Amino acid sequence: MSINDAQDPSAQELLSLPRLAPLVPMLYVAWTDGELTPEELRALGAAARAQPWLDLRSSAVLAQWLDPLSPPTPRALAQVREHIRRTAERLSTSNQQSLAELGAQLAELLGGKDALPAPMQELARTLAPMETALGLSGVEAVRSLLPASGHRREAPVSQASFHVDALRTVLERTYTAERAQVRQWLREPAFRHADERDTAAYRARVFSWLEQLSERGLGKLAYPDDLTKVDLGAFIAAFETLAYFDLSLVVKVGVNFGLFGGSIYFLGTERHHREVLPKVASLELPGCFAMSELGHGSNVRDVETVARYDAGTGEFVVHTPSETARKEWIGNAAQHARMATVFAQLEVNGERHGVHALLVPLRDEKGRLLPGVRVEDCGLKMGLNGVDNGRLWFDQVRVPRENLLDRFAQVSAEGEYTSTITSASKRFFTMLGTLVAGRVSVACGGLSATKSGLAIAIAYGDQRRQFGPAGADEVRLLDYQTHQLKLLRPLATTYALDFALKYLVKRYVGRTEADAMEVEALAAGLKAYATWQTTRTLQVAREACGGQGYLVANRLPSLKADTDVFTTFEGDNTVLMQLVAKSLLTGYRQQFADDRVFTVMRFIVERASGALSDRNPFQVRRTGSEHLRDGDFQLRALRFREADLLASAARRLRKRLGTGMDSFQAFNQVQDHLLTLAHAHVQRVVLEQFLAGVEQVEDPAVKAVLGRLCDLYGLGCLMDASGWFLENEHIESGKAKAIRKEVSRLCTEVRPDAVALIQAFGIPDACLDAPIGLGHLSP
Amino acid sequence: MSINDAQDPSAQELLSLPRLAPLVPMLYVAWTDGELTPEELRALGAAARAQPWLDLRSSAVLAQWLDPLSPPTPRALAQVREHIRRTAERLSTSNQQSLAELGAQLAELLGGKDALPAPMQELARTLAPMETALGLSGVEAVRSLLPASGHRREAPVSQASFHVDALRTVLERTYTAERAQVRQWLREPAFRHADERDTAAYRARVFSWLEQLSERGLGKLAYPDDLTKVDLGAFIAAFETLAYFDLSLVVKVGVNFGLFGGSIYFLGTERHHREVLPKVASLELPGCFAMSELGHGSNVRDVETVARYDAGTGEFVVHTPSETARKEWIGNAAQHARMATVFAQLEVNGERHGVHALLVPLRDEKGRLLPGVRVEDCGLKMGLNGVDNGRLWFDQVRVPRENLLDRFAQVSAEGEYTSTITSASKRFFTMLGTLVAGRVSVACGGLSATKSGLAIAIAYGDQRRQFGPAGADEVRLLDYQTHQLKLLRPLATTYALDFALKYLVKRYVGRTEADAMEVEALAAGLKAYATWQTTRTLQVAREACGGQGYLVANRLPSLKADTDVFTTFEGDNTVLMQLVAKSLLTGYRQQFADDRVFTVMRFIVERASGALSDRNPFQVRRTGSEHLRDGDFQLRALRFREADLLASAARRLRKRLGTGMDSFQAFNQVQDHLLTLAHAHVQRVVLEQFLAGVEQVEDPAVKAVLGRLCDLYGLGCLMDASGWFLENEHIESGKAKAIRKEVSRLCTEVRPDAVALIQAFGIPDACLDAPIGLGHLSP
Repeated sequence: MSINDAQDPSAQELLSLPRLAPLVPMLYVAWTDGELTPEELRALGAAARAQPWLDLRSSAVLAQWLDPLSPPTPRALAQVREHIRRTAERLSTSNQQSLAELGAQLAELLGGKDALPAPMQELARTLAPMETALGLSGVEAVRSLLPASGHRREAPVSQASFHVDALRTVLERTYTAERAQVRQWLREPAFRHADERDTAAYRARVFSWLEQLSERGLGKLAYPDDLTKVDLGAFIAAFETLAYFDLSLVVKVGVNFGLFGGSIYFLGTERHHREVLPKVASLELPGCFAMSELGHGSNVRDVETVARYDAGTGEFVVHTPSETARKEWIGNAAQHARMATVFAQLEVNGERHGVHALLVPLRDEKGRLLPGVRVEDCGLKMGLNGVDNGRLWFDQVRVPRENLLDRFAQVSAEGEYTSTITSASKRFFTMLGTLVAGRVSVACGGLSATKSGLAIAIAYGDQRRQFGPAGADEVRLLDYQTHQLKLLRPLATTYALDFALKYLVKRYVGRTEADAMEVEALAAGLKAYATWQTTRTLQVAREACGGQGYLVANRLPSLKADTDVFTTFEGDNTVLMQLVAKSLLTGYRQQFADDRVFTVMRFIVERASGALSDRNPFQVRRTGSEHLRDGDFQLRALRFREADLLASAARRLRKRLGTGMDSFQAFNQVQDHLLTLAHAHVQRVVLEQFLAGVEQVEDPAVKAVLGRLCDLYGLGCLMDASGWFLENEHIESGKAKAIRKEVSRLCTEVRPDAVALIQAFGIPDACLDAPIGLGHLSP
Repeated sequence: MSINDAQDPSAQELLSLPRLAPLVPMLYVAWTDGELTPEELRALGAAARAQPWLDLRSSAVLAQWLDPLSPPTPRALAQVREHIRRTAERLSTSNQQSLAELGAQLAELLGGKDALPAPMQELARTLAPMETALGLSGVEAVRSLLPASGHRREAPVSQASFHVDALRTVLERTYTAERAQVRQWLREPAFRHADERDTAAYRARVFSWLEQLSERGLGKLAYPDDLTKVDLGAFIAAFETLAYFDLSLVVKVGVNFGLFGGSIYFLGTERHHREVLPKVASLELPGCFAMSELGHGSNVRDVETVARYDAGTGEFVVHTPSETARKEWIGNAAQHARMATVFAQLEVNGERHGVHALLVPLRDEKGRLLPGVRVEDCGLKMGLNGVDNGRLWFDQVRVPRENLLDRFAQVSAEGEYTSTITSASKRFFTMLGTLVAGRVSVACGGLSATKSGLAIAIAYGDQRRQFGPAGADEVRLLDYQTHQLKLLRPLATTYALDFALKYLVKRYVGRTEADAMEVEALAAGLKAYATWQTTRTLQVAREACGGQGYLVANRLPSLKADTDVFTTFEGDNTVLMQLVAKSLLTGYRQQFADDRVFTVMRFIVERASGALSDRNPFQVRRTGSEHLRDGDFQLRALRFREADLLASAARRLRKRLGTGMDSFQAFNQVQDHLLTLAHAHVQRVVLEQFLAGVEQVEDPAVKAVLGRLCDLYGLGCLMDASGWFLENEHIESGKAKAIRKEVSRLCTEVRPDAVALIQAFGIPDACLDAPIGLGHLSP
C-alpha cells in the first residue's frame, strides 16, 4: 500500500487547488511544528483569506484546514509532507528564506508561472509577515521540509596551523633523552593497563613493573653510581613520562626512589650513600617513608613516635607511644618495603631535640616482618590500589646509632647531640626539604594525567556529534561554545603549567641555600595550583564525554580516582597555599610554616607600592583586541592584583596584631584572603613563565599557537578574577565584557588546532588506551 | 646522666649572672626560633650592651652568647630552656606579653626584687623594643617556652542553638510516613554496605535488596492497586530516603519502578495498566527503559531504532538498523530485565511518525534471552557497579500490536495511525515527559548523597585537630575560616535545595497541562543545579577529610563515584540548562528543545523591565548587616540579575537573527550567556523557595538557624556573582566587600550548630557507616 493508494480526502482537496499551493508549506508547518494556539490558527486563517487572490473554494478549504476543532489526521499531514518533498526534488536551488518563498516556488513548479496568483517575489513578500508573526519563519523551517541530502553541510576537516612535531620538540626540550628512554620502556608489551579490581594481583603487577624498570636503570637515573652527577630533574622527567601510564606505578616509583631514596640522599651522609643508596636504586632494598601519623598529617612537627638513644648499647629505640602516633598512609609499607625512613622525636639523655629521621629495617630478605614491627594494610582506597599503603607501629625497636640520617644532626656514641643548625625550627624545615622533590614530582605527574584526560575528551569532542541545524549533519561537540570553554581553557592552563613546571624543576635543581626557601614556596604553590587543576580538569573531561566518560574502559575513572588524592597528599593544598602566602608576607625569609614567632614587621609593603601605581584611567578602559592580547598588559594586571592583595593582607594582619590578638587567631581571620593572595601569586608566576617560554620559541607557527594559548590563559585568569578587578577599579565594566568576549574568540581560534595540540603531548597510544579517544593521537 | 650532671660551661656562665637573667628568654628564642641573621645578632648584642644596668662581666658573656661565629651548642640551649621551664613553674600567672616581661619575672623569682637592675615594669618596657625589632615579640614566643599544661585552652563543646528533632520534623514534613517506612526497612540487617569490587556478587546483592523491598511494598508505593491514588511524590520520597544507603540500589529502583513502570503508567493505557503494571510493582516483571542509543544520547529525537508495523500479522517489527542505533547504557538490561520499553521510530505504511514507545520482551521467565535480542554488558564503570547496564540490539523482533504504549498515538489493526497530538514535535515532548519524574528523583537522590558526604566531612572536621596556637591544644579543622567556607556554604546550599526540591515535587505532583512545560523546565534546571552541587560538594568533602576521605571505608569514594554520572545522565546538565534558558526566552510556551522553528519574537522583555528599574543609588551602596541579611534584598538582586540576563540574551539573539544568521549558529554564539541565565534563574528559584519555607517554620530557634543558612545561601550567591553585579553597577565595591565579610561572619555563626545541622538530616547510622564520621550523628 503506497501513499497514493489511499489518498486522504482533505489532503487531496488541499493539494488539488493551485491557488492554495503557495500556502501548503506554511500550513504543514503550522500544524506539525509550531504548536499554535487555536487563536493563532484562527488568526492565520483570517489573514490568508483576506488575500485578494483566493477564490471561494480555496477559502473554504483553507478554513477547514485551519479549524482548531478538527485538526488534520496524521495521514493527511504525511501526504502533504510527501507532496512537498517530491515537488521540492525538482527545485534547482535550496536557499529559500521563508516558507512563503518555498511555497511560491513549489506552486510555480506545479502549475507554471501563469498558475500563480501573483508574481512570485511579491507573493512571498505578502505572505512572509504572516509566518513571521507566528514564529514560523527562518531558514530552518524550510530545511526541515526539504530532503536532507541537498543541504548537508560537512564541517571541513580541521587543518592544524603548525607542525605537531615542532611543538612536541618544544615540550620535550628538557631531559629529552630521559623522556625518550621512558617512552621506549613503556612501549614494551608488559606495560599495558591492568584490571585494578583484584588488589593483590594489581599490587603484584605494579611491583613487577617496578622491578623491570629498576633493572632497566630507572633507579640509577635518580642516583647514579657517581653521586656528584645526581640530577633529580632527570628523575622527575622520567616520573612525569611514566605518569602517562599507570599512576599506582608512578606513586610506587616516587615512594621508593623519590621519598625513601631522597631521604637517604638528602639527610644521610657518605656512609648511607655508600652502603644503602645503591641498593635502593637497584630495588634490592625496597623502602618507605614513614613520616605521617594518624594524628599528625599536615602538622608533622608534632609527630609522637620517639627515637630514644641508649648510650649503653649504642642504639636508638624506636617506639610508638600511642594510637595517634601510628605511622599512617605509608606507601610501600603494607607489603614490599624492607626498610623505612622513620621520622621521630629524637631523645638523647632525656632531652628532646625535635623531629629527626632514621633508617629502621621492617622486613627480612624473605619479606617477613622483624620483631617489634607491626603492620596493617590501610585497606581499599578510591584509587591507587596498586600501591600497598600501610600503617606501622614500633614496639621498642632497636637500631644501630649509625642508622640516624645524620647530615644535619649527629649523636655521638657517648650520647652527645650536635647540630650545625641551632634553631630547632630551622632544623625541622631543613629536614622537611626532602618533601620538596616529592611536591615537584606530584605536580608534574598530575599534569601528565591532566594531559591524558584532555586528550581523551578533546579527541571525543572532535568526533562526537549531537544536535545540529535542521536538515544538516549534527554538530561536533567541540564546535559548541560551551564545550570549547569547558575544554580549551583547561588546555591552555595545561600548556601554561607545562612551562611553569619546567621552570620549577630548573629552580629546584639549581637551588642554593640562599633561595631554598623561595624554591620551597614555589614548589608548594605550584603543587597546589597544578593538582587542583588536575582534579578540576579531569572532572570536566569526564562530564564532557558523558556516559562514555563514566566507563572504566575509557580511562577517565582511573585518572580521576588515582589523582584525586594529589590535592591532599605531599602537603594538603590548602595548607601549602597558606605557606605560600606567609612566605610572601615575610619575603621568603622567616621559616614560613612557623607561626610561633611569626612577625608582621617585615611586610614588604614598599614592594607592593610600585605595582600599585599602575592603575591609570586609560588602561582601565581600553578594550581593543590588540591591547587585551598583550601579554605585558595581562601580566601587569596579575602583578597588580598580587601586590594589592599582599599589601591589604599585611594591613589586615597588622591591624589585628596591633590590638594584641594572637597571631594564630589573626591569621585565621584573614585565611581566605591569604589563599586568594597565594592563588594570585601562583597565577602571576605561571603567566610569567608561559610568556617567557613562548618568547623563546623559534618556529613561527608554534610560537603563534602558543601565543594564543598564552592569551587564553592570561585573559582567562583576568576573567575569573574580574570581580576583584572591578571591585578595585582596575578595569571598567566594558573592559570586563571585552575580556570575556576575547576569551570566547580565542577558544574559537584555538579550536581548529585542538587535536594537534593534544597530539603534541606525545602520549604513547598504548598508554592512553581509551576506545573513545584512540586513533586520534598519533599525528 | 641528668642535665645538671654535665653543665655546659657557657650555659652555666649565662645563668649565673643575675643581671643577665631578664635577657635569658630572649637569648634562647633568638637562637632557637628566630633564625636571625649575623647582622641582627650583632645589633641585638649592641642594643643590650648599651643598657646602663649591665656590668662588664655581663656584657662580655652576652657578647659571647651573641657571637654569630660561635653559636651555642644544642646542649647549652637545652640547659637554658630547662632552666627557664623550671623557674617558670613557680610563676603565679602566665599572661606575660613579651619575652622581656617573662625575663623580668623570672629574674625576680630567682633573685628577688632587689636583684633586679630596675623595676620590672620599666625593664620590660626598655627591652620590649629590642625583641619587637627582631620579630621575636608576641605571646606565642612566651607560650612556646612555658610548660604547656598551664596554657591549655579547650574549646568549649558546642551547644546547638536549636532542637535537632524540631528541625528534623521540618525537613520531613512531606511524605513523613513513607520516609519513616523506608528508614525502618533500612534498619534491617540485610541492608548493610557490600563490597563493590566483585561485580557479579554486588549485582546479585543489589537485586536481592530490590526483591526484599518489593516484597515489603516499595513498588506499590509507586503504583498502588487503585491507580487513581498514584502519587509519585511518595515514591520520590522513598527514593530520596533510600539514597542514604546504596546508590546502585537506588538507581535499580529508579529504573524498574520510575522509568520502566513510569513509561507504562504515563504512555500506556488501561490494558497495560491492568496487565503489566501490577507485575512491575511486584517485581515479577523486572524491566528496563531503552531510550538512549550509542549515537543518540542527548538528541533522542533522532534515535534510529525502527518499529515497523506489519498489518499482515498485526505485529510491530523492532529492528536495530546500524551500530550507532544500538541501545546504550540501559540499566537492568545486561542481566535482570525481562522486558524493555523501547523507544523507536514508528513506521506505519512506509510513513514515519517519529519516536514512540513499545514494550518488547527481552528474556523468558528463566532469564534466557529471546530470539532476535542481543545483549552486551557495558562493562566496568566508575561507580554504580551494582547496576547491570547493558547494550541492546534487536534483529527484526516481532511484538503484538497491543505492545505499543498507545496513550498519545494509536495504530489500528489495519495500519491506521492516529494521534490526538498533530505536532510531531509536541508528541515527542509529551512522550519525553516520562523523563521528568526521573530528573526529579535524581536531583533528590543526589541531595541525599550530598547530605551523607557533608555529614561525614563535618563530623570529621568537628573532631579532627591540626596545628594551633603555641602551647595550646591543636585547633579543630572546622574552627578554621577556610574550612568553614569549604563546608558550611555547601551545607547552606544543601538546606536551600531541600526546600527547593520539595517545592519541585509539589509542582510535579500537581502539574496540569497548562503548567507542564514550566514544571519540566523547573525539573531540568533543578536537576542540573542540584547534581552539580552534589559533585562539587562531595569533592570538597573528600578533600576536607584528607587521606581519610580517600579510604573506601569512609564512604566518600563510593559517594563520589556513584553520583558522578548524575550530572550527565537523565539529561546532560549543560543541555538541560540550555533548555531552561530557551524556555525562559519563550515564556515556557514553545517546545523549548525544538530549535527548528525557534523564534525570538516572543521575548518577554517587558517582564524584565520591571525588575530592571530596581537599580537605585541608595541600594547600590548599603552595606549594613541588617540590609545584607534581608532576604528581600537578596531576592531582588537575584531577580534583577535574571531579568537583565534574559533581556540581554534576547537582544543578542535578536541582533544575530536579524542579520539572517540561522538560529542554531545564533544560539551557539550566546550559549555561555544562556547557561549563565539558566544558572541565575535556578538560584533565584532556590532562594525564593528557601525564604518561603523558612517563613512557614514555627519553632523560633529552628527558624533562626534556617534564617542564617538562608542568608548564607543568598549572600553566597551574590558573592559568587559579585563580578556581574559590579559590572552592571548593581553594587559598589564597598558592598561587594561587605557581602564577602558577611558570608564569613555567617559561617562563624553557623559553626556551633554545624553538627546539629547534619544530625537533623536523620541519616541512619548504619547507612552512613564511615568510621571517621560515626558516633556524631545520633543526637
